[in-house]
Amino acid sequence: MGVNRQTQTKQSILDAALYLFHLKGFHATSIRDIAGKAQVNTANIAYYFKNKQGLLEYCFISYFEEYVRVLDKNAADLEEKGAADCLLDMVYDILSFQRKNFLASSFIYGEVLLDSSLNREIFSTYLMKEKYFFQLILEYGIEQNEFENISVPMYILQLKGMLNAPIAHSQYAREVLHVFPQETYYTEKYAEQVSRFLQATLFCPFNHEKKQDNHQLLLL
Amino acid sequence: MGVNRQTQTKQSILDAALYLFHLKGFHATSIRDIAGKAQVNTANIAYYFKNKQGLLEYCFISYFEEYVRVLDKNAADLEEKGAADCLLDMVYDILSFQRKNFLASSFIYGEVLLDSSLNREIFSTYLMKEKYFFQLILEYGIEQNEFENISVPMYILQLKGMLNAPIAHSQYAREVLHVFPQETYYTEKYAEQVSRFLQATLFCPFNHEKKQDNHQLLLL
Repeated sequence: MGVNRQTQTKQSILDAALYLFHLKGFHATSIRDIAGKAQVNTANIAYYFKNKQGLLEYCFISYFEEYVRVLDKNAADLEEKGAADCLLDMVYDILSFQRKNFLASSFIYGEVLLDSSLNREIFSTYLMKEKYFFQLILEYGIEQNEFENISVPMYILQLKGMLNAPIAHSQYAREVLHVFPQETYYTEKYAEQVSRFLQATLFCPFNHEKKQDNHQLLLL
Repeated sequence: MGVNRQTQTKQSILDAALYLFHLKGFHATSIRDIAGKAQVNTANIAYYFKNKQGLLEYCFISYFEEYVRVLDKNAADLEEKGAADCLLDMVYDILSFQRKNFLASSFIYGEVLLDSSLNREIFSTYLMKEKYFFQLILEYGIEQNEFENISVPMYILQLKGMLNAPIAHSQYAREVLHVFPQETYYTEKYAEQVSRFLQATLFCPFNHEKKQDNHQLLLL
C-alpha cells in the first residue's frame, strides 16, 4: 500500500472506531465491529493500532495534540493582541475545533469522566497544557489591568463548563432545546454568548467598550 | 426483613452500584461485583432490581425524581420572589444537589453522553421538565423586564454547561486546578461565580444593584 492509501485506511479505522465507541460505548464495541464498519480486515487494525486499547490511546493522543496546537497558536499572539482579544479568539477557535471534531469530542469527554489510568496520563500532559494556556492569558490580563482580579482556577472551571456544553449536552441541545451544536450557525451564536460572558464578568469596564467593538468586527 | 432493613439493603446496593459504575463503567461492572461491594447476596439484587439494567434505570429515575423536585420547589415561588431571585436560588440549590449526590451525578452525566434508548426516555421526561422550569423563569423575567431579551434555548445550554462543570470536569478540577467540587466551600464559591454570570449577562441594569444586594444577603 502507498502512503496515501495507508493514511486513508488508518483514518477510516479511526472514524469507524469513534462512531462505534460513541454509539455503543468502548466496552461494548469489538475490533470485529470496527473492522466491519470501516470495511477493513481485523489484521489491518492490529497492524496499525495493536489492539482496541491502542486504538483508544491513538484517538485520545491525536485529538489532544491537535487541540493543544489550537491553544498554542492563539497564545503565541498574547502580547501583540492583548489578553482580551487573545482569549476571545481562543474561545472561538476552541468551539470551532470541537464542532469540526464532533464525534471525537463527544466520545472523549465521555471517557474523561471515567477514572482510568489512560485518563491519568492525559491529565498529566494535555490538560496541564490546556490549563497552562488559560492561566497564562488570565494572569497576563490581570497583570495588565485588562481583566478583573478573578480566581483563576475557578474561572477556568466555569469557562471549561461553558465551552464544553455543546459537546456534553449535545443530545439535550438537539432533542430538548432544538439547538444543533454541530452546525456552524449555532457555533457562531454560542461563541457570541461566551464572549458576552467574558466581557461582562472578566474584562475591566475601562477596556470593555473597545473590546466589544473589536469582537463585533471579528464576528462579521 | 423489616422495612428499614429493606430500605437500607436497597440503598447499599444502589451506593455500591453507583460507585462501581462510576469507577469501571456500566458494561465492565457485574452483578457479582456489586453484590460483593454491597456485601449482599446476588439474589437480593435480583429481588429489588431484577437485573443490572433494572438497577441502572432505578438509579436514573430516583436521581431525576429528586432533581426535578428541587426545580419544582424553587419555581413555585417565581411570582412572589421575582425571576432574578428565583433563578439565583435555583442555581444554588442545583449546585448543592449535585454536590450532595456527587457519585450519582458523575455517573449519570457520563451515561447521558451515550445515545441509548434509556436516555431517550429520560430526555423525554425529566430533561423536558428541567427545560420547562428554566424556560418558565427566563420567559417570566423577560416579560417582567427583569431580564434582558436573550435567546432562551441558547442561554439554557450555556447555563447547563456552567452548572454541570463541577461534575463533568471533577477530575480535571481536582488534579489540574486543585479545586475540590465535592467540598461545600468550593460549591459556595462556584455558586457566587454563576450568580455573577447571571447578574452580568441576564439581569437588566435597572434591577442589577438591587439584585446584587439581595444575593449577597443570601450568601451570608
